[in-house]
Amino acid sequence: MMNADRPFYIGNVQPAVDGGKYPIKREVGDRLKVTATVFRDGHGRTRAFLKLRKKYLGGDWTESEMRCTNDGLSEWAGSVLLPDNALYEYTIAAFTDLYQTWLQDTTKKSKAGGDIASELIEGLALLKRTRDKMPTEGDKVFLNYIFSRLEQARTNDEKLHIHGDGELIQIVARNPLRDDQTLLEPPLEVMVDRVKARFAAWYEFFPRSQGHDPNRSATFRECIQRLPEIKGMGFDVVYLPPIHPIGFTARKGPNNSLHAGPNDPGCPYAIGNHQGGHMAVEPGLGTLDDFRAFERACREMDMEVALDFAINCSPDHPYVAQHPEWFFKRPDGTIKYAENPPKKYEDIYPLNFNAPDGAWRQLWEEMRNIILFWAHMGVRIFRVDNPHTKPVPFWQWLIQSVQKENPDILFLSEAFTRPPMMQALAKVGFTQSYTYFTWRNFKHEIQEYFTELTQSPASEYMRGNLFPNTPDILPRILQEGGRPAFLSRFVLAATLGSVYGIYSGYELAENVAVPGKEEYLHSEKYQFKVWDWSRPGNLKEYIQRVNWIRRENPALHHARTLRFHKCNNESILFYGKVSPDRRNIILIVVNLDPFHNQGGDIQIPLEDIGLRPGEHFELHELITGNRFLLQDSHFYVNIEFHNPAWIFRVERWDQREQTFDTFSM
Amino acid sequence: MMNADRPFYIGNVQPAVDGGKYPIKREVGDRLKVTATVFRDGHGRTRAFLKLRKKYLGGDWTESEMRCTNDGLSEWAGSVLLPDNALYEYTIAAFTDLYQTWLQDTTKKSKAGGDIASELIEGLALLKRTRDKMPTEGDKVFLNYIFSRLEQARTNDEKLHIHGDGELIQIVARNPLRDDQTLLEPPLEVMVDRVKARFAAWYEFFPRSQGHDPNRSATFRECIQRLPEIKGMGFDVVYLPPIHPIGFTARKGPNNSLHAGPNDPGCPYAIGNHQGGHMAVEPGLGTLDDFRAFERACREMDMEVALDFAINCSPDHPYVAQHPEWFFKRPDGTIKYAENPPKKYEDIYPLNFNAPDGAWRQLWEEMRNIILFWAHMGVRIFRVDNPHTKPVPFWQWLIQSVQKENPDILFLSEAFTRPPMMQALAKVGFTQSYTYFTWRNFKHEIQEYFTELTQSPASEYMRGNLFPNTPDILPRILQEGGRPAFLSRFVLAATLGSVYGIYSGYELAENVAVPGKEEYLHSEKYQFKVWDWSRPGNLKEYIQRVNWIRRENPALHHARTLRFHKCNNESILFYGKVSPDRRNIILIVVNLDPFHNQGGDIQIPLEDIGLRPGEHFELHELITGNRFLLQDSHFYVNIEFHNPAWIFRVERWDQREQTFDTFSM
Repeated sequence: MMNADRPFYIGNVQPAVDGGKYPIKREVGDRLKVTATVFRDGHGRTRAFLKLRKKYLGGDWTESEMRCTNDGLSEWAGSVLLPDNALYEYTIAAFTDLYQTWLQDTTKKSKAGGDIASELIEGLALLKRTRDKMPTEGDKVFLNYIFSRLEQARTNDEKLHIHGDGELIQIVARNPLRDDQTLLEPPLEVMVDRVKARFAAWYEFFPRSQGHDPNRSATFRECIQRLPEIKGMGFDVVYLPPIHPIGFTARKGPNNSLHAGPNDPGCPYAIGNHQGGHMAVEPGLGTLDDFRAFERACREMDMEVALDFAINCSPDHPYVAQHPEWFFKRPDGTIKYAENPPKKYEDIYPLNFNAPDGAWRQLWEEMRNIILFWAHMGVRIFRVDNPHTKPVPFWQWLIQSVQKENPDILFLSEAFTRPPMMQALAKVGFTQSYTYFTWRNFKHEIQEYFTELTQSPASEYMRGNLFPNTPDILPRILQEGGRPAFLSRFVLAATLGSVYGIYSGYELAENVAVPGKEEYLHSEKYQFKVWDWSRPGNLKEYIQRVNWIRRENPALHHARTLRFHKCNNESILFYGKVSPDRRNIILIVVNLDPFHNQGGDIQIPLEDIGLRPGEHFELHELITGNRFLLQDSHFYVNIEFHNPAWIFRVERWDQREQTFDTFSM
Repeated sequence: MMNADRPFYIGNVQPAVDGGKYPIKREVGDRLKVTATVFRDGHGRTRAFLKLRKKYLGGDWTESEMRCTNDGLSEWAGSVLLPDNALYEYTIAAFTDLYQTWLQDTTKKSKAGGDIASELIEGLALLKRTRDKMPTEGDKVFLNYIFSRLEQARTNDEKLHIHGDGELIQIVARNPLRDDQTLLEPPLEVMVDRVKARFAAWYEFFPRSQGHDPNRSATFRECIQRLPEIKGMGFDVVYLPPIHPIGFTARKGPNNSLHAGPNDPGCPYAIGNHQGGHMAVEPGLGTLDDFRAFERACREMDMEVALDFAINCSPDHPYVAQHPEWFFKRPDGTIKYAENPPKKYEDIYPLNFNAPDGAWRQLWEEMRNIILFWAHMGVRIFRVDNPHTKPVPFWQWLIQSVQKENPDILFLSEAFTRPPMMQALAKVGFTQSYTYFTWRNFKHEIQEYFTELTQSPASEYMRGNLFPNTPDILPRILQEGGRPAFLSRFVLAATLGSVYGIYSGYELAENVAVPGKEEYLHSEKYQFKVWDWSRPGNLKEYIQRVNWIRRENPALHHARTLRFHKCNNESILFYGKVSPDRRNIILIVVNLDPFHNQGGDIQIPLEDIGLRPGEHFELHELITGNRFLLQDSHFYVNIEFHNPAWIFRVERWDQREQTFDTFSM
């Protein structure tokens, strides 16, 4: 039976993912803003509170009062600070403000000349009930003082006047009776990640290619030498492809050839040999201690290591012998390699996530143990390879159970697949997702895609991590567009979202592809490489500058505030972001054409960025340092292709003689 | 722990109200169309089924196969017939089509020249498992025949060919293995009402005013005399304001005066005196048997009675003595009347739906007993007075528990209040709702409001019952617009939605108001009246005609198919509806100006109504019988204000010489 004590309707609660089926995502220090429809029958005055608590620690609810923003539609809004890195529950409580309702009705009746003697008895009873439930002695004393004043009062008017005492009303408001309190159930959830989930610059490199000898693997100790340079460019996450022993069976040679020579190191995504599997380090890179030294070195420079979690087993992986039941088998009992006829992937044995007879449980737990092992070694970020080829419920279980104890561990989903799968992976727990950014090069498609990523319901649970290149993708725009394209794509990656990354070589404008493909020629995936990290034409200073601009401007620490603005040239993209406190305003124009200079009128959205028409302001271009003084929303830009992006900070120009202390002296 | 056996993601299911928190509404004979996002990891072939069962009878699920409508977005769609008047559950089941997946992969490998010996063993095992689970002996025999053919086959190619046998594939498809079947949980709900919930014409009258003596109440026996005329106009629901004994204390006199004379009958909404309460009949109207005779007479004419359920108790109601604990009390123990200072409603004692010490439970059950009592007397439709002044959870409980045993009982919510409350009442169970139609007179506001009612998410759960007048509302458009307004507002009510009603007197164009108010002068609410039902200027023939048009044209039996079309005159509203089978097409133009003729170009939406550009068609105007032959989408209409609505049936004009049998003889 429904309960007469809970008469409120609480609905249309926003934000919520699929009506509360999955958590929304926020970051530490954010204010969670919630709106809802709240009402009950009758004309009593309503109070509503936004409630918040950590899900797993069984802590108390904290409350934050909501306010009615539209009485006719019974719309309420409230907000609450999200202080810690944890999974929180939030919900709404509503109840009738009995004392204010009584006071309002009685005052109305009194003004209309009615006899309020009976009402005054009711009001006194409300106050007595309130006093008896008060936790604070001081408040009780105050109410007793009010009672004595009411006793002494001679007329009903006098009594009603005492009931309206300002301090009394405040004290009662702090200690409300909640006879009809109704709670929204079940509560909704918000995963509050650390800020790095939203704001970070990733640098990906193959550790074995960080040395000087093309005939052997570089080591973690050599990688440590590379860190100052990476730090210097302004990165704060160092992401490594798999670092585990590599299979020998059907090992791939250079350029993905089917036969490796005796000295070819193989592809690090074919994991496992007699030296170990997912919890071991490839001996060519060093020992586990060397890895720990590397991880420590990163941390000391205020950078973090992100590890690749690639659930691929080579035929030589220890699991094959120890747990053959985890793999797919042929009728003759042999283990199946991966294939997509006519292609065979004989260097990989896929795991069976629904392994029969409950064996899948052990497999799932082993996968979690891999994460927990590396977490124990200091790794708090995992980039997950091809999660869409494993069951969605597996990821939901794995991430939930890891983050329950380790809410600081972040997971990046490398799923370049159909939108619903990418969204489902984000809903069930992935902290971040790769995006289609890599293939969005033209104005219309960039605007459409990033409006969806940052403004649609998906923005509540999906954070794009933008990579202009990856070891698997050297996009055509970089192959053809050369250095200008590397510059513009870098600025787009660094500013359209708030977390982004590059795969090493990008800073060298490396763009030699396997002809007709998006693959790098002589890819590091299959061989040792030695790089000249200071070769002519490199972008290192530019990258450093843009990363500095990112750090210094809070507007660029957020993604969901992205807004596109108008420019009358289809090759010029114009967009901006405003910081949550609205004090930092960034406007960006990018020439998307790597071959020609482009000019056009941009229309500065004065109102959106808090400027009055006619107000003077300055556009301070942060890459070159150029400054422009403006008063109008129209501004003609001419952007040369070899310096294709301008990042303006809008600065008010509101000094007047009155601004200075001396004026009124 | 998540389960490896249920790897499918099933989401974005439409239709659903608040993610499944409340049932959607449909009517018997409808097809429920459902769309969803359905997928799992990997490249297996998916099958998905829409499942349906009655909620309360614990019956088996019936299944209807869904089809993939967008592979890239994993969108699926299916539909199922809703056969009975009941609350149903619906959900989606998805699983991998193991045999088709195997056949597809093996064929691919074979074509690529691979060795499929191992695959053939797997395929045979799949078929054997399929056979062992088959319920039908005939199918098993067929599979055994296939096995013998496979045994005799000499080459792998030959075996694969047998595996692709068309009949085999059909039989396996009928008996699929469902190893990884995943069910959407919890299921969603659909309340399947009888068709009258959607399509009906209501006629409201005060039974005591259906006679010939202005000094006494007419009786139910006299009311029976009125029925042929009401039936003749084409109505099928006869709705009566409260028929119960009326309180004496503070009884209201004519025109809502505070003091009634000794012969004044009082307002039927002040219910209860020493002769009984909500389960009694006002003696002036007759006995309960007389009411039953009236109800039977309606039923024999294929009409239904709708009763008013007004939870108002006069101070003389038997509950006051029997259950003082159900009322609000003053500190001195006396019962409170309703008041809104400076107004006092001393003829009404409000009930306390949260009566203390659990007394509310008895009260709630008594309210349900009132419904069940009248249901037992044959009443299956209740119009609920002011539901928004009682708790929403009370209605949810009452309607759910009544409809569990009596799904044919319909509830109309008379809540002229804020949109969220009206929507909440519809969500928690009300079959129909009054609307703001009464106050929507101009083109823009009619289009906006009815687009919301029929196209927004609210259309899934809220059915508007359109009244151009009620005993409480004689709108200004009728007061000023006279007969032309009565005609146009009638057609709007009868065709914008699919269920509508008028309050008697409308057919007489009765429009004398209390000056400056929307109240009828000398309202029947407070006095006996005698009417001349055939007085000059009446609309009876017009009403009869329009109701006949409604009955004959299935397009007008539905509301959610309403679409507005273009006309270049702001005083002309142009809209239409198409029947579910798309064979009945109705277009309507209404001159909204009751004072002037209006002309304008309407633009016939050829594509929407299934006509090719250039195709000949006829507009058959069903009120006058006029016919227009057209070939173009543009049509100029000139609508005189005294005949303000045209209802066109679109008829194809596709006869050609080839149409006739003789042509090819």
